[in-house]
Amino acid sequence: MKVSDDANILTSAMTLTPMPTLHDIVAARRHVYRYLHPTPLYRYGGLSRMIGAEVWVKHENHQPIGAFKVRGGLNLAAGLTAAERRAGLFTASTGNHGQSIAFSADLNGIKATIAVPEGANPAKVAAMRDLNAEVIVHGADFDSAREWIMGEAEARSGRYVGPTEGPLICGVGTYGLEIMEQLPDVQTIIVPVGAGSGACGTSIAAKGINPHVEVIAAQSAQAPAMQLSWQSGKMVTAAMDTFAEGVATRVPFANTQRIMREYLDDFVLVDDGAIRRAVVLLLEHTRNLAEGAGAVSLAAALQLRDRLAGRKLVLVLSGGNLSMDQLRDILAD
Amino acid sequence: MKVSDDANILTSAMTLTPMPTLHDIVAARRHVYRYLHPTPLYRYGGLSRMIGAEVWVKHENHQPIGAFKVRGGLNLAAGLTAAERRAGLFTASTGNHGQSIAFSADLNGIKATIAVPEGANPAKVAAMRDLNAEVIVHGADFDSAREWIMGEAEARSGRYVGPTEGPLICGVGTYGLEIMEQLPDVQTIIVPVGAGSGACGTSIAAKGINPHVEVIAAQSAQAPAMQLSWQSGKMVTAAMDTFAEGVATRVPFANTQRIMREYLDDFVLVDDGAIRRAVVLLLEHTRNLAEGAGAVSLAAALQLRDRLAGRKLVLVLSGGNLSMDQLRDILAD
Repeated sequence: MKVSDDANILTSAMTLTPMPTLHDIVAARRHVYRYLHPTPLYRYGGLSRMIGAEVWVKHENHQPIGAFKVRGGLNLAAGLTAAERRAGLFTASTGNHGQSIAFSADLNGIKATIAVPEGANPAKVAAMRDLNAEVIVHGADFDSAREWIMGEAEARSGRYVGPTEGPLICGVGTYGLEIMEQLPDVQTIIVPVGAGSGACGTSIAAKGINPHVEVIAAQSAQAPAMQLSWQSGKMVTAAMDTFAEGVATRVPFANTQRIMREYLDDFVLVDDGAIRRAVVLLLEHTRNLAEGAGAVSLAAALQLRDRLAGRKLVLVLSGGNLSMDQLRDILAD
Repeated sequence: MKVSDDANILTSAMTLTPMPTLHDIVAARRHVYRYLHPTPLYRYGGLSRMIGAEVWVKHENHQPIGAFKVRGGLNLAAGLTAAERRAGLFTASTGNHGQSIAFSADLNGIKATIAVPEGANPAKVAAMRDLNAEVIVHGADFDSAREWIMGEAEARSGRYVGPTEGPLICGVGTYGLEIMEQLPDVQTIIVPVGAGSGACGTSIAAKGINPHVEVIAAQSAQAPAMQLSWQSGKMVTAAMDTFAEGVATRVPFANTQRIMREYLDDFVLVDDGAIRRAVVLLLEHTRNLAEGAGAVSLAAALQLRDRLAGRKLVLVLSGGNLSMDQLRDILAD
């Protein structure tokens, strides 16, 4: 674990853009719904019995790229200047953020260049290339790929897209609005955290509508940087060794930390083993393929079973892009 | 193989109700959309390259019961008389039709009693019970369960629901309308056949809007009764030994045969082995779990690769209710 020199989140955040608001998320809907439809929220009897709560699953895996991130990319693309569109978008991704940028760039006729770390999920890389993105493999993890592509963007005068930019948070926050409309009396929402855009968008939307809604974030215990930062109020870099690339963050993000410190009720860690078991349970009880990150919310709910008893609970199934190797490996456990 | 005494389809069909029309399917939408939303139609690059066509998948596996049949049950329930609602619904099912009736009955406060054959998919049986249906296991296959429950319905003065009743065909036909709206220049639609309601609804809807759309039905070669009947124009009972319970029909249905003889362009058989491989390909390329029946359309497209070259092709992924045993078994191939 390493605490950065400029470790205080509020200090780090002072140079950041204004916090996104409920208003910004509501405004994002017209850009998101130009191409997407609301995703289903379904109640599952088997999961409800298992957790002892009324369990609903928000099916962001039903999105075109198989993940919630697509909402953010569409909102970001809608707000680009003509110069930015011509310059092209540059970003780094373990997969779903890159697919989102590739999807939105492709729809808008913008060139997308995306750096992915070595060993990136091949299903996600193939999907980005299908969306006409240039995909470059660089570095051992997300943060290495990110540092490199930021340099490339500058050298090529392109527009670098960071994974926690405001328009991305507001775009993905539209699924939080959908949850509040689909299940107005929801009591608890559990959302996985990678860079944190989903947790931020969800909590701003849900609590903006009903401040009594509890929002709990969850991350792999094998990649706890965001949770440790949230808990301590300092920017904590931590070991990262999870199979769930969607929550595999080593270096925390000040922008989302700032929002999560204000909005989240709790932030828990779940072991990779529990995430793997949750992938199997989701297949069995919902017949949906979840990637590791997408199963984190169920793993967290099982861990928090006692305090969730009897509650109306929404689990965000953030994405379904599990590779076949990961699936075979998990089913062989 | 056995040809029935009253083997001519047109003769058998003379006592049947009028053929459903495009008008009936359009009229069904208000009942279906009271509870459901249109399902996505997505294009997949990997499948497109594999088949050499522009391949789109209609995601009926995204429905609340994980299968297209839910549309039919909702339309049927909306048209019941007060006496029928009080008497309760009785039906037989390998799973998805039963879930559809259970779902619709539960929403409408109607009692549902459903016979399933021995060895029925446990995921589907559990789902029916979650929807408050009384599920009774009876007989070695669908047709045995069906004969028995028809007697029960009569003895208990209930309303027996056959799997090919007009309101069911019109309800499921609403996904055909969605395909025509989502991809107006679709050239070929491939749809799996169990009892035939999906193929009938799709072809009436699609050809009612554009007579040039080609509709191809497909079934397991290990359960060819419907295909042999369609090809010969006689009611042919055939051996049934497929793992894909959604297309496991032993005794053909005159009502749907009559419609399919008029509307279908072709009807092909695909081996269970090819269906199993298609389940894996759908997981890999779309990250969606398909049950055997749901993968039949992809298996057929791969078989018909040459004649589909360059076409705009829709594969109906009719349902996703694969059991965990089936999944483990298929991934071990």
